[in-house]
Amino acid sequence: MYLERIDSPQDLKRLSVPELEKLAEEIREAIIEVVLGKTGGHFAPNLGTVELTLALHYVFDSPRDKIVWDVGHQAYPHKLVTGRRDRFHTIRQEGGLSGFLQREESPHDHFGAGHASTSISAALGMAVAAKLRGDRYHTIAVIGDGALTGGMAYEALNHAGALQVPLIVVLNDNEMSIAPNVGALARYLTRVRTDTRYRQAKVEIERLLRRLPQGERLVELSHRFLDGLKEVVYRTMIWEELGFTYIGPIDGHNLRELIETFQLVKTFDSPVFVHVLTVKGKGYQPAEDDPFKHHSAAVKVPGAPPTPPRYQDVFGQTLVELAAKNDRIVAITAAMPDGTGLLPFAAAYPDRFFDVGIAEQHAVTFAAGLATQGLRPVCAIYSTFLQRAYDQVIHDVCIQKLPVVFAMDRAGLVGEDGRTHHGVFDVAYLRCLPNMVLMAPKDEDELRHMLATALAYEEGPIALRYPRGSGVGVPMLGEPRVLPIGRAELLREGSDVAIVALGATVLPAERAADILAERGIRATVINARFVKPLDRSLILDAARECGCLVTVEEAQLAGGFGSAVLETLADAGLLIPVLRLGLADRFFDHASQASLRRQAGIDAESIASRTLAFLATHGRIETGAISDR
Amino acid sequence: MYLERIDSPQDLKRLSVPELEKLAEEIREAIIEVVLGKTGGHFAPNLGTVELTLALHYVFDSPRDKIVWDVGHQAYPHKLVTGRRDRFHTIRQEGGLSGFLQREESPHDHFGAGHASTSISAALGMAVAAKLRGDRYHTIAVIGDGALTGGMAYEALNHAGALQVPLIVVLNDNEMSIAPNVGALARYLTRVRTDTRYRQAKVEIERLLRRLPQGERLVELSHRFLDGLKEVVYRTMIWEELGFTYIGPIDGHNLRELIETFQLVKTFDSPVFVHVLTVKGKGYQPAEDDPFKHHSAAVKVPGAPPTPPRYQDVFGQTLVELAAKNDRIVAITAAMPDGTGLLPFAAAYPDRFFDVGIAEQHAVTFAAGLATQGLRPVCAIYSTFLQRAYDQVIHDVCIQKLPVVFAMDRAGLVGEDGRTHHGVFDVAYLRCLPNMVLMAPKDEDELRHMLATALAYEEGPIALRYPRGSGVGVPMLGEPRVLPIGRAELLREGSDVAIVALGATVLPAERAADILAERGIRATVINARFVKPLDRSLILDAARECGCLVTVEEAQLAGGFGSAVLETLADAGLLIPVLRLGLADRFFDHASQASLRRQAGIDAESIASRTLAFLATHGRIETGAISDR
Repeated sequence: MYLERIDSPQDLKRLSVPELEKLAEEIREAIIEVVLGKTGGHFAPNLGTVELTLALHYVFDSPRDKIVWDVGHQAYPHKLVTGRRDRFHTIRQEGGLSGFLQREESPHDHFGAGHASTSISAALGMAVAAKLRGDRYHTIAVIGDGALTGGMAYEALNHAGALQVPLIVVLNDNEMSIAPNVGALARYLTRVRTDTRYRQAKVEIERLLRRLPQGERLVELSHRFLDGLKEVVYRTMIWEELGFTYIGPIDGHNLRELIETFQLVKTFDSPVFVHVLTVKGKGYQPAEDDPFKHHSAAVKVPGAPPTPPRYQDVFGQTLVELAAKNDRIVAITAAMPDGTGLLPFAAAYPDRFFDVGIAEQHAVTFAAGLATQGLRPVCAIYSTFLQRAYDQVIHDVCIQKLPVVFAMDRAGLVGEDGRTHHGVFDVAYLRCLPNMVLMAPKDEDELRHMLATALAYEEGPIALRYPRGSGVGVPMLGEPRVLPIGRAELLREGSDVAIVALGATVLPAERAADILAERGIRATVINARFVKPLDRSLILDAARECGCLVTVEEAQLAGGFGSAVLETLADAGLLIPVLRLGLADRFFDHASQASLRRQAGIDAESIASRTLAFLATHGRIETGAISDR
Repeated sequence: MYLERIDSPQDLKRLSVPELEKLAEEIREAIIEVVLGKTGGHFAPNLGTVELTLALHYVFDSPRDKIVWDVGHQAYPHKLVTGRRDRFHTIRQEGGLSGFLQREESPHDHFGAGHASTSISAALGMAVAAKLRGDRYHTIAVIGDGALTGGMAYEALNHAGALQVPLIVVLNDNEMSIAPNVGALARYLTRVRTDTRYRQAKVEIERLLRRLPQGERLVELSHRFLDGLKEVVYRTMIWEELGFTYIGPIDGHNLRELIETFQLVKTFDSPVFVHVLTVKGKGYQPAEDDPFKHHSAAVKVPGAPPTPPRYQDVFGQTLVELAAKNDRIVAITAAMPDGTGLLPFAAAYPDRFFDVGIAEQHAVTFAAGLATQGLRPVCAIYSTFLQRAYDQVIHDVCIQKLPVVFAMDRAGLVGEDGRTHHGVFDVAYLRCLPNMVLMAPKDEDELRHMLATALAYEEGPIALRYPRGSGVGVPMLGEPRVLPIGRAELLREGSDVAIVALGATVLPAERAADILAERGIRATVINARFVKPLDRSLILDAARECGCLVTVEEAQLAGGFGSAVLETLADAGLLIPVLRLGLADRFFDHASQASLRRQAGIDAESIASRTLAFLATHGRIETGAISDR
């Protein structure tokens, strides 16, 4: 067993290549055991980067040298060899290791990650800092071919090519990011992989690399060698056009080849682009055969009761139904055809389905362009990823009042993916935009109706936010129907307190009302449905009737839904006590959704107890038996 | 005079090439007369696109064919030949033509613009819509070389190359966007321009194009011709790698060459990239000699009194001073070295100055990378453009609590640039982010202190928002000093009403207090300084003392500063009437800043009269002589 002796990357340097190869096997076994057997999490990407990780840590000296992993969901091998082996089984669990990278988790995590395409920018900053501060360290960005479809990666390449500081960009090319890669770039990479000249050149590279002398003459020789090679083979490389020296393609599972390549590029003093070919799911046959399906793994508990359909699937199915009756409906995803539930739509209407790659900015403006010509684009982008296209939502959609539908899945607390992935800012960042309509369904059945509502609304943009995971198990009968814009739903009438809840917090609010009822407190419960336009009239009536009000949301409180209610009350001159429940001003770490909701104090019990404390504070009830959280 | 006979693009088609050349001269004269002599506005870019515009409208049939101009500040010739000649002298004036493109202004404005790099995405949407709906029209995106440094343009090229629908992308390459272009791409374009093989090929193109037969055989022949040509000359073209047929470079001031080229590409049924070389400022020698300086023109009123220094210049000068004492300070701009006031910094510290091009996403994450290594990056990005990097602010800066300073110039209503450029969402979209500190100076002197405060703050991100244009003329004496984080400034104490104002609205609020004083109403006035953290204690004290409160801000009211005050009052259980003054839920068109502030009701007189009405409504004063706006 080698793995148990690796407490830091330094320990790798004592191993021979055959020993490293055995270590690679052990790392694969550890990942398969923990991820498939216990925690779930990103799977195939991590099997693909084992040798790449070992070679990088063998050749470079982290934490002195800075290795910046893009996205971070392929960094499990990195975690295993950087002192986190003993905690690896806690990955993605509450209090355990993050499933992505976090600076505070390890000195070897040089830059946090979670969203794609950031690594080259961050690494370039570090490379420039070394130059400015007179430090000497190497900077390496490891980016996947999927992340390379994101525009900001290209912005960074452009800048790096111009600055000509030493920077090593490693393209981890597995021909497949989360979804099979879309776009011209993917085709281009495939052509490079399959070029017969590449095959010949590869043999030659290997032969020559083995013969290269070490030491001072290495740089000179390798430059000469590469100049000659590229003249013959890679004249069309776009990386060279951008100011990078291109090296590749390299077999990403051949440790010797990887190590020799990195030893070579370590000697460069200008930007280098290393093209590494890996196999997603490498070493686990089912994942190698279907890496798309095995991108991430969910652990199924044997004998667990069946769960209600997931929001994403209800969305996808409903969209298929609505599209059957309206051929103007088209759907757009940014590399998430599966996660957004759009696969059935893609199968039913391949011509009306667009996967633009990890390219949210383009996705939104492309949708705006479609909308100008009378189509009804549905942009299905997770709440957290729509942050990437904020300006496009404002500038290309809202200002022009174009009827684009934003289906924001994974709104609220997403659970195990943690702080980078919670979709908790959308209420604040969308409700400040003129022309935007924003709604949130209380359950999966209402999601159907809201999607129908969105597609019936032709006046301008409309967004719906709904949670990650299973619905609540309500029946879904009849056709999806169109809801009146800006009208809330009165669920029960009381006179002691009005609880106005948004989206996924409506059911907990109703359960909280049940708990309050046991205490003799009669609560009005309103399902807000719309953040914008808010149902002012129903909310003001309830506020007047009850004399005090509680808002509940699974979003940041600052500028959020409760804040919209405060604005409405203030504008109406209605002075009543208001308790706002939602997410406090901090980032939430990874844990189960249920746990996070408890932490945030927006589960049914917390809503009830916090409402009781609030009523007591304002002298609405006796303060006797109240225990606040 | 030809121009006076051009009421629509159809009228162009009756002119001969020599007549079009004369028309081009007249258009230049009209632009020089109106922009230099009367309205100000974007200047050099519009002189560069005259022939390109005429050729496009001569060959294509707008509005049937869709010509999408990127940014839109080079579309004055387009406005002149699409029925807006008679209103051209009103450009950028209140009630007049927009300085950019707006769909409602003309059926020939197929997509609104203002921010860069959106045209290819929008045009691709239109091209796909044509295919889906069975329509037949041509779609043309015209994008500058500067806008091509924006990542979303690349996302769109990648998608277009993969879809292979007919789409014409015209690169308007003037070697110069707003600032001299930065980046590897710019170097690449320069190489293409100066390649001697290009010179030879160009002669050959011209010769062959003149000989090409019209009609059905054109496509076949031209394809064959181009295949041969590219084999010889343009094997390294990155556009070809992305799935586009590359044609160029074409002389963008040679009408015959342009027309023949567009007639050729009109016959293509797959994506084409037409590389057009233009001279920014063409036809006006001072602008040709210094296009950077003549990017836009401001009209100076003769004999006008000197104005106080501009915020941007105070920012730039202060940064130079602070950087002299701290060599860790570095500055980053996204193609706005002049507009942000960073030119003196760039001159003083060229190694510590980074212009990344029109690439806000990269700018922010690059800054984050610099910050990880102990540098103190100041990211100077206009409020409206920071929208482009929203996810990077959240994901790469706030989550990691990295000490990046965001200097948000042009916050609030910017005036003549209009709806796409107002920086009015930043308060809402930044204050919902954990770890962010957000401040706004009341005048140019306080800007100095806030910049010093930001650079003394090492705990995490900190943003400052300040307006476009001249300061208010306060003296700027002594060293910039560090203000206490989260502490507001009590400017005057009254007991009838508390006015809490943010940033540029503080001085109008003080003047409003003077007006109120004339009516015998004594107002407390607070300069909030910080949106986040808010000075809860001072605001709550004033609220308790006065019993009613007015907030003033130059930002969207929904989720804005007043909303933060409401949250504070509600959380403290303090029930008092609050009037929030700020921007209503709509987009504001172009007009002078003074006029826009009046429209929004946040000038001194409006603040006073609205406060009076508010006090009357709540029975705080007699309702006699109050006239609300």
